Amino acid sequence: MTVNEFPFDVITEQEYDRLRALYEPLTESMRRLIDAGIRTGVDDSAIGEARAAIDSATETLERVRRDTTSTLRHAGTGRPLAWANPAVGLRNAIAPPMRIEHEGENGRCWAEFTLGAAYEGPPGLVHGGVCALVLDHLLGEAASDGLTKPLFTGTITLRYLRGTPLGPVRAEAFIERTEGIKTYARGYLGDADGWTVEADGVFIRPAWARDAG
Amino acid sequence: MTVNEFPFDVITEQEYDRLRALYEPLTESMRRLIDAGIRTGVDDSAIGEARAAIDSATETLERVRRDTTSTLRHAGTGRPLAWANPAVGLRNAIAPPMRIEHEGENGRCWAEFTLGAAYEGPPGLVHGGVCALVLDHLLGEAASDGLTKPLFTGTITLRYLRGTPLGPVRAEAFIERTEGIKTYARGYLGDADGWTVEADGVFIRPAWARDAG
Repeated sequence: MTVNEFPFDVITEQEYDRLRALYEPLTESMRRLIDAGIRTGVDDSAIGEARAAIDSATETLERVRRDTTSTLRHAGTGRPLAWANPAVGLRNAIAPPMRIEHEGENGRCWAEFTLGAAYEGPPGLVHGGVCALVLDHLLGEAASDGLTKPLFTGTITLRYLRGTPLGPVRAEAFIERTEGIKTYARGYLGDADGWTVEADGVFIRPAWARDAG
Repeated sequence: MTVNEFPFDVITEQEYDRLRALYEPLTESMRRLIDAGIRTGVDDSAIGEARAAIDSATETLERVRRDTTSTLRHAGTGRPLAWANPAVGLRNAIAPPMRIEHEGENGRCWAEFTLGAAYEGPPGLVHGGVCALVLDHLLGEAASDGLTKPLFTGTITLRYLRGTPLGPVRAEAFIERTEGIKTYARGYLGDADGWTVEADGVFIRPAWARDAG
C-alpha cells in the first residue's frame, strides 16, 4: 500500500453522509445480484432477461463517467474515503461489507461483518485468499493509522489455524512495534469460537516520505 | 483450502461448454456493472433507475434458486469446477477474470489476465490484498495438483517487491518440495517488467486423508 502520495479533496461530514446514503444501497443491490448469480438455476431465456436488465443498469450508470476517482478525505477524521477499494470500498461490490472502526492507541482497528456465499472457498468456509485480502487491508489500516501515514507493505505472513466458517466474522489489527522505517503490525480474523487466521505484516515508510518525518 | 472432502458430480465436456457459454456472459455483464458503479457520476434519480434494473435482474435470477452449489468435476480433466469461487469462479463476478492453465510437472500452473479499476488499492496499482487472493489461490492449485488432492493451507508469506500496476498481469505457481504431510509451493505475480510479488506457502495433508495415501 502506498498512501498520501496524491492530492485529496476534503468533504464535509454532511456531504459524506449524503453520498453514503446514495451509494450504499446501490452497492447492496449489486451484492444481492452477485449472490443470486452464484445460486441461480433459471433457464437460458431467464439468464438472457437478467443480462439485459444488468446491461441497462450499466448504461444508466455510464451516462456520466468519472475517469479519475479522486480520493476524498473526511473533514472530521482526516481519513481518506476509499470508496472504490476492493477490500472496504463503499462503492465497490467486490469488497466484503466491512466497516472499519478505529480505536486510537497503536493504530488499533477492527471490523465485524458477515461473509456470504460469494466469499466461499471450500464448502461452508471462507476462501483463504479472502481472509488474506481482509487481513492485508486491516494491517495496512493499523500500520498507517487509518491511511493517514504513507506506508507500503513489505511482507505479510498468514497462519491458518482452522477454517473460517461463512457467516459473522470479526477482524482486528494493531501496531506491534516500530523500528526506524519499519512498522510491524499484527492482526486476527475469527468467528464466535475464536481466531481462525493470524497475520503479521511489515510496512515500510517510502524514501520520499522520510525527511517529512 | 480443503478439497475432496465432499462428493462431486461429474459433467461431460459438452455440458461444461454449454454451461460456460451460458454463465460467462452473465458474469461479464456483472463485472461491467461493478466497474460502472465505481466510476459513475450520475445524479440521484439515475442511481435509483439503475438500482431498479439491478433488483429486477436479481428477482429474475432468484426465480429458481439452488441452495447447495454442489461441486462439479470435469469428466475430461477430473478437476473440480469451482464455479462460485471468489478467486477464479466463472459464476462469481467478484473473482478476477483468471483462467488457470495447468502444465503438468510439479503442479505448475499459470494465468494471464487483466485487473481493472475494481481491484485498485493505491492509485493505479492493484490492492495488495488482491495480489494475496490471487497468489493464495494459485499456490493452492499447484500444491493440490489442480484441486485433485486434499490439502489445506498452513501458512503463506507474501513479499511485495514493488507495486503491481493495474492492467495485464501474469501469475504462476509450482511445488518446490514435499516433506511428509507438508507440500511447499512457491508463486509469483508480475507485469511485463518482471515480478512484483513473491509468495511461499506450506500446504498440509489433513489427518483423514493420510491413510488413503
